[in-house]
Amino acid sequence: MDIARLSSRDPDFWPRLERLTAWEGVSEHAVADTVREIVHAVRTRGDAALLDYTARFDRSGVTRAADLEIPPARLEQALAAIAPAEREALQLAAARIRSYAEHQKLDSWRYTEADGTVLGQQVTPLDRVGLYVPGGKAAYPSSVLMNAIPAKVAGVPELVMVVPTPGGEVNELVLAAAAIAGVDRVFAIGGAQAVAALAWGTASVPRVDKIVGPGNIYVATAKRMVFGQVGIDMIAGPSEILVVCDGLTDPDWIAMDLFSQAEHDEDAQPILISPDAAFLDRVAAAAARLLPDMERAAIIEASLTRRAALIHVGDLAEAADVANFIAPEHLELSVQDPGALLAQIRHAGAIFLGRHTAEALGDYCAGPNHVLPTSRTARFSSPLGVYDFQKRSSVIFCSPAGAAALGRTASVLARGEGLTAHARSAEYRVRG
Amino acid sequence: MDIARLSSRDPDFWPRLERLTAWEGVSEHAVADTVREIVHAVRTRGDAALLDYTARFDRSGVTRAADLEIPPARLEQALAAIAPAEREALQLAAARIRSYAEHQKLDSWRYTEADGTVLGQQVTPLDRVGLYVPGGKAAYPSSVLMNAIPAKVAGVPELVMVVPTPGGEVNELVLAAAAIAGVDRVFAIGGAQAVAALAWGTASVPRVDKIVGPGNIYVATAKRMVFGQVGIDMIAGPSEILVVCDGLTDPDWIAMDLFSQAEHDEDAQPILISPDAAFLDRVAAAAARLLPDMERAAIIEASLTRRAALIHVGDLAEAADVANFIAPEHLELSVQDPGALLAQIRHAGAIFLGRHTAEALGDYCAGPNHVLPTSRTARFSSPLGVYDFQKRSSVIFCSPAGAAALGRTASVLARGEGLTAHARSAEYRVRG
Repeated sequence: MDIARLSSRDPDFWPRLERLTAWEGVSEHAVADTVREIVHAVRTRGDAALLDYTARFDRSGVTRAADLEIPPARLEQALAAIAPAEREALQLAAARIRSYAEHQKLDSWRYTEADGTVLGQQVTPLDRVGLYVPGGKAAYPSSVLMNAIPAKVAGVPELVMVVPTPGGEVNELVLAAAAIAGVDRVFAIGGAQAVAALAWGTASVPRVDKIVGPGNIYVATAKRMVFGQVGIDMIAGPSEILVVCDGLTDPDWIAMDLFSQAEHDEDAQPILISPDAAFLDRVAAAAARLLPDMERAAIIEASLTRRAALIHVGDLAEAADVANFIAPEHLELSVQDPGALLAQIRHAGAIFLGRHTAEALGDYCAGPNHVLPTSRTARFSSPLGVYDFQKRSSVIFCSPAGAAALGRTASVLARGEGLTAHARSAEYRVRG
Repeated sequence: MDIARLSSRDPDFWPRLERLTAWEGVSEHAVADTVREIVHAVRTRGDAALLDYTARFDRSGVTRAADLEIPPARLEQALAAIAPAEREALQLAAARIRSYAEHQKLDSWRYTEADGTVLGQQVTPLDRVGLYVPGGKAAYPSSVLMNAIPAKVAGVPELVMVVPTPGGEVNELVLAAAAIAGVDRVFAIGGAQAVAALAWGTASVPRVDKIVGPGNIYVATAKRMVFGQVGIDMIAGPSEILVVCDGLTDPDWIAMDLFSQAEHDEDAQPILISPDAAFLDRVAAAAARLLPDMERAAIIEASLTRRAALIHVGDLAEAADVANFIAPEHLELSVQDPGALLAQIRHAGAIFLGRHTAEALGDYCAGPNHVLPTSRTARFSSPLGVYDFQKRSSVIFCSPAGAAALGRTASVLARGEGLTAHARSAEYRVRG
């Protein structure tokens, strides 16, 4: 297994780093054409099209649209039936995700000016949100918790989950997680047809205002296509982990932390940065030793070979510069004084401080969301949070005196822009 | 002039309202092909391509890329040269926009749990932001203030403005507004080539992290295309105003308020809702009387004829239902008790309360942003604000005891998902 080695002293270090971390989302014309056809069919033919595609892609035998819904009692049944240890773990994770999310809630505010004019911002939840959950292998109950709980904390009255059940296969943990998270309705549909049904509504599936949750390229393409009609969350790229280590953490721990993201995907990107070159060797040796035992060794090895890197830097300040360039989804600061290093970090989705804070804790139950910006987008975007399910309205209430004063200013500016109806509308309030 | 009339008692009221307010963003294949070519050329050939396109589209004679930059002294010169009344109006508007924006600033937070584990959210500004400002007729200094000031309040260190100067034509008010708003650098470039230069950087134009600001279909298409590489703001549809009036405001005021958005664009959508049918007649008569005097009468008449409506409802509660369905960009509550009606409003970009609060005051100087969600997207999105120039990173610092406890839960959940590297990474911290 060959992991790329870089050193910040290499003359071509920065361009090489840029090439290593570049990721251009795949967009395939054939996929787009198929998705366009599916979205159009569901938009125009509703449930009939939804039943057709679900029969075709998920080998479903359902013939009545009403039977696509999974009733709440079925979710409760799954919750009762799973192993107690799993139920308790899901409940503990949910409680911690909820508790963290409560801190994110935005509140309305207003202030009054001397002349009685009131300005403010009114914060309201979205009316109805759709949550896409992949079926089959990639069905993750943790993802249900991470997407659903912030929406419910925001106060979204109706949360509608869709999950494909290919060949009738249902993931009991996913249904149990939906019960714990307070999902309101669940439909056994998936793919672009489920996204279209949520965006446009059918007789059976209610139209939502925003669609969140991960999915394959058909789902991602459909989400991009319906954006505008509804809101969407980010389209995620492959998982990434960047570990900055001073060389004093157990190399096995660091190797396993790198594996934990590598096992997601052959395109996942695990990177380790250290000012201690010998430590990079020790982690490489640990990785080689640990790999054969891993259940997902082939995926991990592909990720390490294709996209990983061990980066030698002069000091931790330089490590912070590299981290800020990469703006990683997950950043572990496995160093003696992580607080000091944190102050130098400007761009990252989630930051894990200290040798004990394994990134995997954040994936499940630390509390913060595991839906995070990837592919350097942490330069300008944020983790999924309660704020993604709330929106703001500006509030302006002018007193007569305030309107007269503002009207004079607005009139000058509107006339400067040649917008005289604006000016005259304002001027009525100066005289009025 | 014929303005559509609707009544909530019509049996086909809701579907008719939906058709009236539907707006599907134009996407033209020919435009997309042209833009793709321009973006690719600027990305690969940099300044050389930028100079070529600027010469071709803006009839520029500039041959050295460095000469595309408009120096700060030129902005100060514009500020000194404009009429004092305009300078004062811009400064007053800027001060109010800044003061409102200060209220929007997000702060970092953290909390400590019983076992010493610390969870939090770190808020940081974007490093560098690009601001697109249209040239020619549609050059609005108010738009410079509204886009630039929130970015500077957020703490963005470098704000780069681009503005085309077709045939060398420069708008002095736009340059003066840039000086007032604290824009750091200005380039005389526009169109898709300017968006591409900001997204990918050239030798002369620095690469930014997010691009905001209005533009024509080429600019909008380019922004969609570079999204992912950089962040973008919303792609705006035509302006909208929805006035709810109890029938007791001067009909001339309401007619002019409707005109103030109609004059933007033949596709702009002005709508009036009232429980008083006779008042709708009076506003229609006022509009017919006032129209011939308007400087932009032709545009206003086209907007009123194509997309406006006068809607009769049973009472104000029903007016609120209609407003929530439309989720208008601008909502005027021109009624006796606007506060009571406000409590029933869930979806709107900006809400203007009371008879004196003309929407036009908000366009220029009330303080809240005039960049607002259009085309029913206020159901899920918010006005442009300081928060659009800040992003969050989750912060997790586990004490050894906290990591051990969380590790047990994470291990159960990771094994439930078949992700054993996650489980083992967590388990090291249980034993560690």
